[in-house]
Amino acid sequence: MKHQNIPYKIYLTEDEMPKAWYNLRADMQKKPEPMLNPETHQPATLDELSAVFCRELAEQELNTTDAFIEIPEEIRNFYKMYRPAPLVRAYCLEKKLGTPAHIYYKFEGNNTSGSHKLNSAIAQAYYAKKQGLKGVTTETGAGQWGTALSMACSYFDLDCKVFMVKVSYEQKPFRREVMRTYGASVTPSPSESTAVGRKILAEHPGTGGSLGCAVSEAVECAGANEGYRYVLGSVLNQVMLHQSVIGLETKAALDKYGIKADVIIGCAGGGSNLGGLIAPFMGEKLRGEADYRFIAVEPASCPSLTRGAYAYDYCDTGMICPLSKMYTLGCDYIPAPNHAGGLRYHGMNSTLSELYDQKLMEAVSVKQTEVFQAAVDFARIEGILPAPESSHAICVAIKEAMKCKETGETKNIVFGLTGTGYFDMVAYEKHNSGTLTDYVPTDEEIAKALEKLPKLG
Amino acid sequence: MKHQNIPYKIYLTEDEMPKAWYNLRADMQKKPEPMLNPETHQPATLDELSAVFCRELAEQELNTTDAFIEIPEEIRNFYKMYRPAPLVRAYCLEKKLGTPAHIYYKFEGNNTSGSHKLNSAIAQAYYAKKQGLKGVTTETGAGQWGTALSMACSYFDLDCKVFMVKVSYEQKPFRREVMRTYGASVTPSPSESTAVGRKILAEHPGTGGSLGCAVSEAVECAGANEGYRYVLGSVLNQVMLHQSVIGLETKAALDKYGIKADVIIGCAGGGSNLGGLIAPFMGEKLRGEADYRFIAVEPASCPSLTRGAYAYDYCDTGMICPLSKMYTLGCDYIPAPNHAGGLRYHGMNSTLSELYDQKLMEAVSVKQTEVFQAAVDFARIEGILPAPESSHAICVAIKEAMKCKETGETKNIVFGLTGTGYFDMVAYEKHNSGTLTDYVPTDEEIAKALEKLPKLG
Repeated sequence: MKHQNIPYKIYLTEDEMPKAWYNLRADMQKKPEPMLNPETHQPATLDELSAVFCRELAEQELNTTDAFIEIPEEIRNFYKMYRPAPLVRAYCLEKKLGTPAHIYYKFEGNNTSGSHKLNSAIAQAYYAKKQGLKGVTTETGAGQWGTALSMACSYFDLDCKVFMVKVSYEQKPFRREVMRTYGASVTPSPSESTAVGRKILAEHPGTGGSLGCAVSEAVECAGANEGYRYVLGSVLNQVMLHQSVIGLETKAALDKYGIKADVIIGCAGGGSNLGGLIAPFMGEKLRGEADYRFIAVEPASCPSLTRGAYAYDYCDTGMICPLSKMYTLGCDYIPAPNHAGGLRYHGMNSTLSELYDQKLMEAVSVKQTEVFQAAVDFARIEGILPAPESSHAICVAIKEAMKCKETGETKNIVFGLTGTGYFDMVAYEKHNSGTLTDYVPTDEEIAKALEKLPKLG
Repeated sequence: MKHQNIPYKIYLTEDEMPKAWYNLRADMQKKPEPMLNPETHQPATLDELSAVFCRELAEQELNTTDAFIEIPEEIRNFYKMYRPAPLVRAYCLEKKLGTPAHIYYKFEGNNTSGSHKLNSAIAQAYYAKKQGLKGVTTETGAGQWGTALSMACSYFDLDCKVFMVKVSYEQKPFRREVMRTYGASVTPSPSESTAVGRKILAEHPGTGGSLGCAVSEAVECAGANEGYRYVLGSVLNQVMLHQSVIGLETKAALDKYGIKADVIIGCAGGGSNLGGLIAPFMGEKLRGEADYRFIAVEPASCPSLTRGAYAYDYCDTGMICPLSKMYTLGCDYIPAPNHAGGLRYHGMNSTLSELYDQKLMEAVSVKQTEVFQAAVDFARIEGILPAPESSHAICVAIKEAMKCKETGETKNIVFGLTGTGYFDMVAYEKHNSGTLTDYVPTDEEIAKALEKLPKLG
């Protein structure tokens, strides 16, 4: 095993941590299309967005020109509590695969929320506090975003109201309890506490709820409570901006050891992790300074990039949020059950969608049975029990490493290990007992879903 | 907030990680008493111990003279996958408490087992593999030790048979599933697979089992299977030796920044974490090079140091393991339900017991309601959701910091944060809903338990 003086884990010092987020859109010649007001279908203005988001977050959402946006000191201090995240050299995995490739992963799971979601949660809570708000509302499905936001709100002494999809609320009592421990109120959705919740309960008594319904309740709740705003953990460009810390740290760590990445791989749901990871590398590619292959990995059950359409669509099932031009399966596409809850989203961040459309990025889909096999192999070899979402990237990183074994190429493969799977043991149990199955929508199902895309203008 | 150029987290480089374990007994003038053979009541010999443990581990158990024992390279490489563990400066906690004290904690929870247990599990698995064994057996209650051992065995391709207390097996299906994911077989105890299990089931149909019963089954299973040995996650001096990496890293990190600890605090169940954390500091104290206060924190429901007797006792309820001279409540003392499962042990490591008897270390007990309040406060302030066991140390560290606030002293307080509480949300739920209660044994209960101590010779 040749170590080349590269440690198992590369940690930056606190001084080496990024002091500004990187806004990839500033380096794009052809920018992503603007968000549209859901009522007028005209580009959403700062004032319109400020009614939904905090003012500074709305500004970040619309900012396509400033390449760097300073990270406020209070956020940087919070980052120091759980960052820098290590860039890990997967020596054991390389040895087990017998590949000449060098494999690195950026591990974002070393914090109580269990994922990278905290990077944006703390930023959104900070701006909410700075604006003098009392609190924020949000929805959560699998629970990682809700946990991250409850931690961030606890830090800034903000109230946090989480609408948790009822079926998850009941199936994941531990996730719910972590949020309560951080002081958040967690309401199973649909609930009697909102008009939209009462309407849904009247029409569908006993329903287990859906993410779309939870979004609608969270937005209504924010509007009904003075001093509250609604916040979102993915899809938005402000979120991708905050998540650029992942890529900036990764690049600084590679640069520190003179390593040039060849392939960069990330799982893709709404795009927050993938976008953050690849941002500074993609910037170099756009500026003609370096070339990289980028691979977005999505579940075969929810293939927005690989089988969706590039079109304006609603970001939420309730059709109350702004529209975004993105790769989408249609906002009422209901993915078949897949245990990577964080990847069960019908659309994709607009910046990533535009880059994919410009063929600057590749995308592949994988089935969950192969994903869980990769997850278990990885856990046994590298020690970390990965989240199902992250395991999509692991699965493709292993495939790329095995290609290198065939060709004999010593490529540097970098992937994002977004989080841990401690709260996903129900899915692991299914894998371990051989009862996990795959879901791949038929062409007819995809076509039918795409027929419902909104007709604009 | 005065930062003094000390980062939030001090990480050693891989080169700075310990290359040898520190054997505290070598520096003790009056050594702990030897283990006794349970049948002859004579000091256990190397050959006798080798029938139970791997040969090299038996040698380590008996070694009271070599101050340093080299860590084999394969173990050091495994350590690099999840170590060095950070020494964290609790800036946010200090600020919230308004204390002039500086608080540091050594965080051992950044690995999939969720605790420091992995430090010894990997060593024990390594020596088992080196000796050519096929596998190992063990018992687990709360599940942290079983998880750590299953990870270590997976790494060295050893079979791992875990007997899990039946009530935990049923209440903690996720812990069980993590072990299965790492390839361990997990059997609810008592089981039909051993004679002792069948006997207990016949006498107590439907019993939820106990740790003592699980030990007995694991020992019988190791004896009945060619090429198997029984391994244990705490109490033994070999375990305390391996856990010295905690203290060695802590001391190296403090030395790197010229910080002199004043008070060092650890939770104490069997003593593995506390012993490992304090070892190199206690060595300095024994050699007269420096002085420190050491505080062992135990649950009021299981107060072996603060209310037990210093006497020879069996290490296991089944009375089949060697006897050890230690602070004990009697080997069939059944602690009242307490959610810090890792601290519900009747005895204490013999080295720590001897040091306590020589008044080189203090001990205090705390009630679980105050422990969980400290846990929740810590989670909200420092971000990390602590294990109930670790929270005993947090609780006393906060008390010491508040004393400094009264006196105005700027002491350096160091405590061990042994692990995370992700699998302990049932207990947090009870705290959050106000249904957690305290259990303190009466003097009569303690006296009655101590009457049963074995009469030797």
